[in-house]
Order: sequence, then C-alpha cells, then structure tokens
Amino acid sequence: MDEHADARPDVAAPPPPPGAGEVFGDREYRQGAVDLLGILAYGQLTAFDRLAEDARLAPTLADKVHMATLASDQIAHFGRVKRRLADLGVDVMEAMRPFHAPFNAFHDYTRPKDWLEGLIKAYVGDGFAGDFYREVAAFVDADTRTLVYEVLSDERHGEYVVANVRHAIDVDPRVAGRLALWSRRLVGEALSQAQRVAADRDALTSLLTGTVDRPGMDLAAISRMFSRLIETHTRRMAKLGLQA
Amino acid sequence: MDEHADARPDVAAPPPPPGAGEVFGDREYRQGAVDLLGILAYGQLTAFDRLAEDARLAPTLADKVHMATLASDQIAHFGRVKRRLADLGVDVMEAMRPFHAPFNAFHDYTRPKDWLEGLIKAYVGDGFAGDFYREVAAFVDADTRTLVYEVLSDERHGEYVVANVRHAIDVDPRVAGRLALWSRRLVGEALSQAQRVAADRDALTSLLTGTVDRPGMDLAAISRMFSRLIETHTRRMAKLGLQA
Repeated sequence: MDEHADARPDVAAPPPPPGAGEVFGDREYRQGAVDLLGILAYGQLTAFDRLAEDARLAPTLADKVHMATLASDQIAHFGRVKRRLADLGVDVMEAMRPFHAPFNAFHDYTRPKDWLEGLIKAYVGDGFAGDFYREVAAFVDADTRTLVYEVLSDERHGEYVVANVRHAIDVDPRVAGRLALWSRRLVGEALSQAQRVAADRDALTSLLTGTVDRPGMDLAAISRMFSRLIETHTRRMAKLGLQA
Repeated sequence: MDEHADARPDVAAPPPPPGAGEVFGDREYRQGAVDLLGILAYGQLTAFDRLAEDARLAPTLADKVHMATLASDQIAHFGRVKRRLADLGVDVMEAMRPFHAPFNAFHDYTRPKDWLEGLIKAYVGDGFAGDFYREVAAFVDADTRTLVYEVLSDERHGEYVVANVRHAIDVDPRVAGRLALWSRRLVGEALSQAQRVAADRDALTSLLTGTVDRPGMDLAAISRMFSRLIETHTRRMAKLGLQA
C-alpha cells in the first residue's frame, strides 16, 4: 500500500463527505451519479422480467402473487429513478444504454433452472448488488442517495425466500449443496460484470476512488468495502442455511 | 318475451337501483359481489402474466417499459380488490378459485403469436371484458362499484395500441385481415367462457337477472346490454382500423 493512498481519508462508511454530492458543477461527478441511476433503472427492468418469469414458475397461486408483487414493485421503483433522472435533465433510456450489455450477459449466464434457483437469485444476487449500490450511493448527492436507499430496501422478500429455501432443505438436504454452488456462481458472475462496468465507466469508478478535488476511497478502503460486501453476503447465506 | 319479464324494470343503465347494493343481508347478493371481485382479481393476475410476456416480446426498450408498467398496474389493482374482499371478510384466494378454469382456458385458447396479437388482446379482449364487468357493477354496492370503475379505467393503453396497430397496418395492409380475425376469435372465446361462468355461478347471474325481492334485467334488457357491448367493441375496432 503506498503512502499517498494511506493519506487519503477513508469515507466508505456513512456519513458521506459533507457537501460532496451537491457539487453538480463537476461534470464527471454528475455523470457518475447518472450512471448509478442508469444501472439501478436497467437493473429494475431486468429484475421485473426475471421476477415475472419466476411468478410463472411459482408452485402455488399465493407464491405467484408474491413474485408478481415483487415484479410490480420493480416498476414502481423504476418510475422513481426515471423521475429523478428527469430532474437531472437526463432521459432514463439514455442513462440505461451503457448497461444493457453487462446486465443482459449476467442474466444470460445465470438463468435459474427452477423455482428455488430463481428465489436465490432474487435474494442473494440482488442482495449483493444492492449492498454494492448502497456503497456507491454514499458518494452521491443527498437526494439521489435517499432515493437509492429507498428503492433498495425491501426486507419482505428476504424472509419469504429464507422460509422457502429452509423448507426445501429440510425436505431434501441435498438441495443445500446445489444451491450453495449456484449462489457462488451468481456472485462470481456479478463481480465479473461489475468489473466490466468499472473498466468502461470512468465516471462511476471515480465516484468511488475520488479525484484530485474530491475525496474517495483509497485501495485499503476499497478492500474494506469488499470485506463488508462479503460479510453481508455470508450472513445472508447463513440465514438460508447455505455455506458461502 | 313473457309478460312477467316485461313488467320488471330495465335497470341496465346507470344509475343503479337505489340501495340495491347496500343490502348485504341478502346472502346470494353478497356472493354475487364477491364473485365479481374474484373475477377481477384473477383476471388481473392472468393479465399480469400476459403483459409481462408481452414486455419480453417488445420490439424496443420503450415498448418494454410501457408493457411492464401496464403489468405492474394490474398488481396494484389486484391489491385494491384484495383489500376490498378482505373488508367483506373474504380471502382473495378463495374468491378467485371458481374462475381459475375459465380464465386459464381462455388464455390457453388465445395465445398471441406475436407482439401485435398481444397488443390487440390487451385492448380488444380486456376492453370487452371490462365493459361487461362495468355492466355487472351497476348492480353491486356503491363502494364495490366505485372500485370496479377505478381499476378498469385506463385510457393510456388504448391510445398506445391504436397508434402501434395503425402504424403496422400502414406498413403492411394485409395485417388488418389477420388482426380482425384474431379479434373475432378473442371475443368469441371470451363469450364462451363467460357463458360457462354464468352457468356455474348462480349468484353472479342473479346479480344481473335479479330475484323476486331485487330488481334486475329482463331478457329484453339483457339483449340491450349485449347490443351496448357489441357497439363499444365495434367502435374500438374502428379506432384500430379493423372491421369488427
């Protein structure tokens, strides 16, 4: 770890650097916030598709209603993100464009083969992505940050997935190994697509790393962020009765 | 037409018979209202499925957003109907049960082969069904009636479908014949499933026809109701540039 990196403040944990988000005069900074919202919006649209498909696979009508409700929540969230982008003078369709390819690739590589894999994908995959978006949101303006936190917080689904997966493991303990492997694949694919986005979108990356004028995370802070993400992921897996 | 039938008042047109809906002491009457709400709820769930599938077939991302929004509206409406049923002391799952078979059959027999057929199904099929539900709603209590009118009224989709279908016909006029046939099939299937429901659900049927204690429609009034349904359907088809 180099001296320079050590000298920069570690601002990964809330509260965010005072006023950092409000500096919309900084063009690259603004683009980073727009990228974050674009990712959320396209993520919500693809999540809608996937949850609607899960609703179709649902074993009971009550499960169908649950999944269809989650799918429909994604569209409500999409509407809010779209309005926030419009406030920033950006069309949601434009903001989403850079993220079609990585999201589509992620979903192509991680098609659930059954109902349980779909549930895990919605809980483990979206949970991991959500934690990451929250980390990034610490570096954007207060209004955008509040919006990101609000559209990401949904505890209802977690309990539902945990109950369903634990029940399935009770009925057939062999399921646990397969689902643990599936979860590892989801996180692996998510990280590899995130890397692709990071490489393509300098503005988004520099939200995290900061610039000469703006504080961000040094390498040590980024590594601590990853530790936090892995920790939360491991906790989520434990709740499911799965090994991370 | 028999004398007795002629002597009964024709109450098909609003306003509904004063106070008729408020008589929830009448058990069969209440069951009719519950049936109407159960039909709406299950119709909304199946519409969600179909619109989410349409969203997947959408030619552009903007079309996808439009269809996904409509799908998600269905779930919002479902939530309202579910709450109204709960107020009446009825579980939505129970209320929907008698209508699984006819709705599933309708959808099995009318699977859209492409994007345009899906649009027509959402506009012509749901439009026809909605007009019928509104007719029945004239005979239920004021709160239920208001709810039915609210969850059914959505003009946004109509304009969207009309623009898309007219454009497709401009590009290739042969499309019109195929879509006109498709619309006729939709209405035919809808009527044949409605007949099945009418035969099975006395309470629902007697909402329309009335009982000794409660006014309803005589045969002449029912035939006028069908004329109204066909008229509105024909107007809808004309808007699309299709022959009814």
